Amino acid sequence: MADFESIAKQFVEYYYKTFDENRNNLAPLYRDESMLTFEATPLQGTAAIVAKLVELPFQRIEHQVATIDAQPSNTTGGIIVIVSGALLVEEERRPMSYTQTFQLLPNNEGSYFVFNDVFRLVYPAA
Amino acid sequence: MADFESIAKQFVEYYYKTFDENRNNLAPLYRDESMLTFEATPLQGTAAIVAKLVELPFQRIEHQVATIDAQPSNTTGGIIVIVSGALLVEEERRPMSYTQTFQLLPNNEGSYFVFNDVFRLVYPAA
Repeated sequence: MADFESIAKQFVEYYYKTFDENRNNLAPLYRDESMLTFEATPLQGTAAIVAKLVELPFQRIEHQVATIDAQPSNTTGGIIVIVSGALLVEEERRPMSYTQTFQLLPNNEGSYFVFNDVFRLVYPAA
Repeated sequence: MADFESIAKQFVEYYYKTFDENRNNLAPLYRDESMLTFEATPLQGTAAIVAKLVELPFQRIEHQVATIDAQPSNTTGGIIVIVSGALLVEEERRPMSYTQTFQLLPNNEGSYFVFNDVFRLVYPAA
């Protein structure tokens, strides 16, 4: 059995490194059936998803991952990955908390693609 | 096609109402293959999951849901549900932020059970 926790950790490192360097390069991780819900806005398909990520109104972004949780999501190799962390945007030094949930499914090339992707900023409860 | 957003909303309302009233009554929502990762502690199966929830060290708890996101998680009726919100414990009036992700799968009785469940407190990033 694949080690879903190692795969989740590798995916998260790769995803945010790529996001923070050049969001266009995230395209190969998505497919036409992929879904992204970004702050309640639903998008489907690689083109729509990457367009949304690229057009986000900041040039510089840094994701700081605080927690990674993973579980098998089905009996055919799917993995659910839940990340919490902080975002630093542009020159702003006050981080914002976020949470992002992915479901990774095996592709036919020994790797994975993102089937589900849900992003939310988390505001302080107090 | 079932309306996954309505199902997610109904599930979340039922889940936290039941949690806040009597956590023992959550047992029918889980199965032996269900997984819960609670603040990084992994548990599997109805008995272990409900025991964990019941033994949490508080008597009074109130969940205040802020956001609910949902997407289909497979082609056979699964639904991924991501909740963010605030927790009020005992007489403490300062809420804590949390996020909880579920994958619901159809049972054979026209309803759903919880296959994946991941709970995390979210601490302020600043």
